[in-house]
Amino acid sequence: MNEFELIKHYFTKQLVTRKDVLVGIGDDCALVQPAERQNIAITTDTLIAGVHFPHNTSARAIGHKSVAVSLSDLAAMGAEPSWISLAISLPNADEAWVSEFCAGVFELCEFYHVQLIGGDTTQGPLSITVTAQGYTPIDKQITRSGAKAGDWLYVTGNIGDAALALRYIQGEIEVEERYRAALQDQLDFPKPRILAGQVLREYASAAIDISDGLAADLSHLCQASQVGVNLIVDNLPLSEALFDSLPAEQAYQLALIGGDDYELLFTVAEDNKVGMETALANTGVPITCIGQLNSSQKIKTLLNGETVCMDLQGFEHFSLSRV
Amino acid sequence: MNEFELIKHYFTKQLVTRKDVLVGIGDDCALVQPAERQNIAITTDTLIAGVHFPHNTSARAIGHKSVAVSLSDLAAMGAEPSWISLAISLPNADEAWVSEFCAGVFELCEFYHVQLIGGDTTQGPLSITVTAQGYTPIDKQITRSGAKAGDWLYVTGNIGDAALALRYIQGEIEVEERYRAALQDQLDFPKPRILAGQVLREYASAAIDISDGLAADLSHLCQASQVGVNLIVDNLPLSEALFDSLPAEQAYQLALIGGDDYELLFTVAEDNKVGMETALANTGVPITCIGQLNSSQKIKTLLNGETVCMDLQGFEHFSLSRV
Repeated sequence: MNEFELIKHYFTKQLVTRKDVLVGIGDDCALVQPAERQNIAITTDTLIAGVHFPHNTSARAIGHKSVAVSLSDLAAMGAEPSWISLAISLPNADEAWVSEFCAGVFELCEFYHVQLIGGDTTQGPLSITVTAQGYTPIDKQITRSGAKAGDWLYVTGNIGDAALALRYIQGEIEVEERYRAALQDQLDFPKPRILAGQVLREYASAAIDISDGLAADLSHLCQASQVGVNLIVDNLPLSEALFDSLPAEQAYQLALIGGDDYELLFTVAEDNKVGMETALANTGVPITCIGQLNSSQKIKTLLNGETVCMDLQGFEHFSLSRV
Repeated sequence: MNEFELIKHYFTKQLVTRKDVLVGIGDDCALVQPAERQNIAITTDTLIAGVHFPHNTSARAIGHKSVAVSLSDLAAMGAEPSWISLAISLPNADEAWVSEFCAGVFELCEFYHVQLIGGDTTQGPLSITVTAQGYTPIDKQITRSGAKAGDWLYVTGNIGDAALALRYIQGEIEVEERYRAALQDQLDFPKPRILAGQVLREYASAAIDISDGLAADLSHLCQASQVGVNLIVDNLPLSEALFDSLPAEQAYQLALIGGDDYELLFTVAEDNKVGMETALANTGVPITCIGQLNSSQKIKTLLNGETVCMDLQGFEHFSLSRV
């Protein structure tokens, strides 16, 4: 089976056809007709086997995650996802694998009404690059740079579970059997916070997704906004699984630098706090206030009301092999 | 040097800042404000070392080519390039290499006023994925599927020189020294036919870029348009270098299946023939009429007025290692 047949057979099986896509897969380019009075958010992410996911990850999970990580970036901007392009490099043309991979891609595309509009299939070590695009109404995007001293810092969902799952797989941390399936699911099938992002357009002063780890991404947000923060470590939303698997301080530490959570970290001015909390409560997305910004340009970590020294170095490529 | 510093130091050194880019590199997403009454053409291509370019290709040439192949797809659609996203996987963070690579990327971006709006840097075997976007005025795009029986078939520039350069590097074909530098340049620094594509919006019934080889891409165009063609092989525009390096029939054969030419193959209805030839003459882009379409859905090759049997199989991934 050659390149073109592969693309035709599997990547064209999607069920989503959007009205703003005039030409889809199969020509030199896709052609889209952007909605009026909307800007377009664009993000590109690469996932490499053995770096961004364990080599034995299921094809469906790899497909899901490839799309989810890019949609998570759109969520952090407050965008409504619309189109993705997918470039995949495969060691060989294994039809069963490609079929399962596409199932993972398309499940998420169908849920969010996102159309796959193009891509490229090449032979090489397993690697996937997704470019995702989405709409934000004019002047309604959320960036990393809008936070101000005095704003409150929030995070969606729980953090640290994906990192715990990875450490368990690597044999570094023991986890009770009753937690394992849910943790694996958290690692393999992250849910981008699209709905929360769109609600936050009206309230948040800044947002970032915490794919690199809470501490690292908080540092990016603080740098972009030129602010600092008092981070209340005991407020970090940790799952029962994480608290049951590690002593509290180690659990907090893992949550700070673990990465792969794909939750949103965002800031809200005092005046928007109540409105934001009410609006997000209506969506059912759990949020937790974990600190307040100041003008120090430093991250100070507090535990039981006292300053503690914690490791805030997130994962960085070229310095650490993860899986 | 870590991922973020790499991106900051080199990928933000570009000189192009477009008014329609509201947020560039450095946030979760880029944000663009599309021009009114324009559609957006989008294309994604991956280049892998040892597959799409020889391992010893210069960093600057790799940077240039990574952008050129995607711009060539935009040209085939008649689009005016606007933004690119670049995902690169590197075996190690070699600063000198990255600097030269970026020089190659930015030369082409500056020439066409294209802004790099985002990307991702990961560690892995050398591979580059570029997603390029561009504008086409509403209802003015060129697709592969608009060709009709009776239309004339044209190609821009010369074909076969990139394939000849590659065969020379591989030691398969001897080339006189006086031709070598220009051939190497043709292989390493292909020029996307952006201007020709934009002119052709007014005249062409269909177009495709011939990155996969003239015969293979002609076959794609014929399939998409449900037409056939009488291809006048003796009309193929071959360089003096190619004619001097191979017997005529072998030279034609290489031009048919060689690939990597990044010229445009396009079709024009009889009524638009003169207008198109005049308009393209004004741009200085050489074109050659190489056949006429019919309703047979077959490609018939003619040499000296007689039907000849030629190999029309272009390069396909998973079946042939090229470099």
